[in-house]
Amino acid sequence: MRIVVDMMGGDNGLYATLPAVKEFMNRHKDCELTLVGDSEAIGVIEGVEVIDAKKVMRMEAGALEVFRDKETSMAKAVMATLEKKADAVVSSGSTGAFLSLCALRLKKLPGVLRPALVCDFPTLVKGKKVTILDIGASSENTPEELNQFALMGSLYSKYSNGIEEPQVYLLSNGVEEEKGTPLVKAAHVLLKDNKKIDFRGNIEARDTMAGFADVIVCDGYSGNVLLKSSEGVAKTMSRLIKKAFKKNVLTMIGYLFAKSGFDEMTKTMDYKNTGGALLLGVNAAAVKAHGNSDARSFCSALEVAYRIASADLLSKIKEGLA
Amino acid sequence: MRIVVDMMGGDNGLYATLPAVKEFMNRHKDCELTLVGDSEAIGVIEGVEVIDAKKVMRMEAGALEVFRDKETSMAKAVMATLEKKADAVVSSGSTGAFLSLCALRLKKLPGVLRPALVCDFPTLVKGKKVTILDIGASSENTPEELNQFALMGSLYSKYSNGIEEPQVYLLSNGVEEEKGTPLVKAAHVLLKDNKKIDFRGNIEARDTMAGFADVIVCDGYSGNVLLKSSEGVAKTMSRLIKKAFKKNVLTMIGYLFAKSGFDEMTKTMDYKNTGGALLLGVNAAAVKAHGNSDARSFCSALEVAYRIASADLLSKIKEGLA
Repeated sequence: MRIVVDMMGGDNGLYATLPAVKEFMNRHKDCELTLVGDSEAIGVIEGVEVIDAKKVMRMEAGALEVFRDKETSMAKAVMATLEKKADAVVSSGSTGAFLSLCALRLKKLPGVLRPALVCDFPTLVKGKKVTILDIGASSENTPEELNQFALMGSLYSKYSNGIEEPQVYLLSNGVEEEKGTPLVKAAHVLLKDNKKIDFRGNIEARDTMAGFADVIVCDGYSGNVLLKSSEGVAKTMSRLIKKAFKKNVLTMIGYLFAKSGFDEMTKTMDYKNTGGALLLGVNAAAVKAHGNSDARSFCSALEVAYRIASADLLSKIKEGLA
Repeated sequence: MRIVVDMMGGDNGLYATLPAVKEFMNRHKDCELTLVGDSEAIGVIEGVEVIDAKKVMRMEAGALEVFRDKETSMAKAVMATLEKKADAVVSSGSTGAFLSLCALRLKKLPGVLRPALVCDFPTLVKGKKVTILDIGASSENTPEELNQFALMGSLYSKYSNGIEEPQVYLLSNGVEEEKGTPLVKAAHVLLKDNKKIDFRGNIEARDTMAGFADVIVCDGYSGNVLLKSSEGVAKTMSRLIKKAFKKNVLTMIGYLFAKSGFDEMTKTMDYKNTGGALLLGVNAAAVKAHGNSDARSFCSALEVAYRIASADLLSKIKEGLA
């Protein structure tokens, strides 16, 4: 198994990626790593291949720049993934650039209509995550694509999250079968007929985190709205919680007493535990770690890549779509 | 000014609506009320017209039932609004039924392509709300409809929320002009050219509550996802907060100290202060109060109806669209 790592992306660059890689190596001796980044700063690590690339992909890089500039660590990492037939590539750089590079260079798996960006949301059920896709690889989808997302998400849930028979739902504006946009209604018909998944019907956005769904399928645009509005409200409420505790001396004392309870809550809601998002449907597991990843968060992203490669998820998707 | 009130809808029926109406009457002597509901239970109220209707619209009523059963308090209230040329109608019954009845019976304002469901979200800026539309009157929209929503929302923000020059944004999956679905991109072009509004560009769902936008325009399906996912996350986090405080004796003591801070937070996030949603674009202000409205919440809905009628918002929309 080989994982290629873009060491230079993200807000914290090597300060996050280097300790993460070292921690990961201690845990998984069976995995070969190719690190792409400033080779002097990375230094020599036994048994690890390093490809030199000092240049960082700009966060604002437009499509032209993304493809033209072949010297960035991200571009080199994706090319190395292709050349070495690596199982996975991990980066915390620009999401748009990473998605474009992976989709174009790594090419789609045979049978895949369109790759989907996948992520896990926390739920009210302790330890349980819900897999949502597409959260934004596309801005427009067909019913057939949504039907494929359901299968890819179901296999991901089974092999990465360990859910034996994942219950799949379709995002809509009502639980009734006839609810939704023309796209959602057409997708519903296909999903009902899909024997390879356990389709349970429509789900409303308010029940995303309730914990009964294992997989939620949606088009990339709605998924993006779902992801970002959830992020926005969570951030807003976290700020209000801080403000509430800082109101006066009494509330500050209250914080000291209540802290242990809130630490648990923070852990539940902390996206740093989830390891970012995954582009599913191309010829490698392309894991996009959070831009502001710290070492722990980047290490979670490496773990996602490892789990998917170990389970040979991509072969299962190929078989499923055949 | 006349407001028609469906007294029987909502989880709490007359227990919520009757005290709300009495409180509202004390505040606004200039407003004539028509109450539709169980006339015996309502009793005689000086200067107030009561239309007898004991039957409650079922929450699960399908389209056929909604239109066929003319004896429900909701159906009678909407008909009374039409017959009396009332300025507004308020109900806390089934949203689907109320939207269908108002759209069909009250008819669209001249020039309106499609009515939109409007609601105000809280923001991080104290006391400031952001107006979002459409949050679910349609499942499919055209760019021209979104352009009209922008104008209707802008006028609502000005006359109901008192924002002199509302800053209008378009929901998209990125702030760049070229981002979004084909619908969003086409709407962006129209909004940029619209001289009647102050269009500021795209906004991502994560910035909804940041407080810089006064109006956010979106199609009904995305708006519904935005509204419901926000509700879902807010509810999830509220539960986690409760759980955090209930963890052990220390955290419970913490709650006693921190309570005053959290009361303020609850007030900010409490949808009961916002009075529900408004169907804009038909021949009356159609205000849908929350299904689980208590007296305070239902009274807020009556206040919304009153503000819109006082400001003669519907005439302003007619002029704006002419």
